[in-house]
Amino acid sequence: MKIVTSIKTLRPILTRAKLQKKTIGFVPTMGALHEGHAELLKRCKKENNLSVLSIFVNPTQFGPHEDFRKYPREKTKDVLLAKKLNIDIIFYPSEEEIYPSGYLTYVKVERLTQNLCGRFRPGHFQGVATVVAKLMNIVSPDTMYLGQKDAQQCVIIKQMARDLNFPTAIKVVPTVRETKGDSKGLALSSRNKYLSQQERKEAAALYRALCLAKEKIRQGVRKASSIIKLIKSCISEGTSGQIQYIECVDADSLQPLKTLRGKVLIALAVWFRKARLIDNIIVTVK
Amino acid sequence: MKIVTSIKTLRPILTRAKLQKKTIGFVPTMGALHEGHAELLKRCKKENNLSVLSIFVNPTQFGPHEDFRKYPREKTKDVLLAKKLNIDIIFYPSEEEIYPSGYLTYVKVERLTQNLCGRFRPGHFQGVATVVAKLMNIVSPDTMYLGQKDAQQCVIIKQMARDLNFPTAIKVVPTVRETKGDSKGLALSSRNKYLSQQERKEAAALYRALCLAKEKIRQGVRKASSIIKLIKSCISEGTSGQIQYIECVDADSLQPLKTLRGKVLIALAVWFRKARLIDNIIVTVK
Repeated sequence: MKIVTSIKTLRPILTRAKLQKKTIGFVPTMGALHEGHAELLKRCKKENNLSVLSIFVNPTQFGPHEDFRKYPREKTKDVLLAKKLNIDIIFYPSEEEIYPSGYLTYVKVERLTQNLCGRFRPGHFQGVATVVAKLMNIVSPDTMYLGQKDAQQCVIIKQMARDLNFPTAIKVVPTVRETKGDSKGLALSSRNKYLSQQERKEAAALYRALCLAKEKIRQGVRKASSIIKLIKSCISEGTSGQIQYIECVDADSLQPLKTLRGKVLIALAVWFRKARLIDNIIVTVK
Repeated sequence: MKIVTSIKTLRPILTRAKLQKKTIGFVPTMGALHEGHAELLKRCKKENNLSVLSIFVNPTQFGPHEDFRKYPREKTKDVLLAKKLNIDIIFYPSEEEIYPSGYLTYVKVERLTQNLCGRFRPGHFQGVATVVAKLMNIVSPDTMYLGQKDAQQCVIIKQMARDLNFPTAIKVVPTVRETKGDSKGLALSSRNKYLSQQERKEAAALYRALCLAKEKIRQGVRKASSIIKLIKSCISEGTSGQIQYIECVDADSLQPLKTLRGKVLIALAVWFRKARLIDNIIVTVK
């Protein structure tokens, strides 16, 4: 496994692979890798000849009062995991390598960035779209792998890649969750590290609430407001979490739904003291 | 020569060329080709194994009251010229092919888009940056050729390509001008078609004024305001043109200069009835 920090070193390696008709798979991350990332990496490894993992805590996707500085950085552990999974290349650039002085260009995706997390994190998705566009140009992957936990991010990146004609297929991999113990069901996230033992346990209620909502829809409930109310009460009654939003939107357009129909994304963000957690499920309503 | 209208058809042709280690040269245009474009195409042809010309009148770079509808479209003549120059591929997409319904993504370059033409054409350079980013992803050229007449466009596209890590070199080719007759010195432009015989003659004053400014700088003038005043009087006294702007800026940062120093871009835009003409020169001041 190679750890590459400069674009200039990375490019010829990938160009050579392309000329040898190797397919390139790519997993962009901010590091602090967990089993969710491992799932992406395994898929990437399985489906491509050459697997590239990028680790870059992207400053432009953090707001001025967000956790950019304290976001977990765990290089040694991340490298070990990548090695274990037989990843070929880790791209590990500095901030200066990605945003050299005099940097001026941003990619914006309209409409899809306005609600859900976008409403509470202005500029976040512009930062995400910009860095992913850059990484796609640097790595030029055949296939890129993203995690469904970041549902809005997946929709926005797919739209951006399609709109700007990136020659890269994008695959979305299901959310990985805690499988046992008190926090069973909790979606894996690097930010779970901010949680106390008690909060981890409480945070498992997010997924339980989403599953309950799904069950209610199965039983015939079609009013978004009823579903939102149900999830709200589950979370506010059983936990110390502060709800930021709970929304039912169309899973493709991300536009809010009053009546549930088609592919429905039920998404939420909840604060547990220092940790802002997000989770979601997609329910297909006939 | 192939004329290709769909991205789906174009991509495999170019991928095949890449695998054969052919270099791809690219000239993006809005058609209505003239000798200025021919210069770009000749350079492209000479320096690459495969030459691609795109012709697309890009709606997103026109303002609501600008000349999108009446912009000259001369497919037959353009195809003949490209054939004569042995261009390999013309990419001639429809509007729907480039901006399919539901299109949402835009590329913006900050600061460089604020003055010169950007001040009078809000959104213009966002449209330009977006379509060029798309075309670079579609064609994936080794080298792209742009004309110096659109000086601000060249600086913005170079910045965008560098910032977003496009693996494409950008070469800027000198402005081609009328070489004889009444309009000698007039920069070639598709919009010159909007000019009457009398206006063509008058419009030649733009370049004469720029050359006079250069001569004054050579003689020691360093105050931008003096140079601007000189150009202004040349144009307003000798022609019916309405000056939109005359600016002296740093040729790289495009920031206005009070005292001329380094690589100075002197740029102007002048309206002749229906035609908005632009021109510029770069003067290196020691």
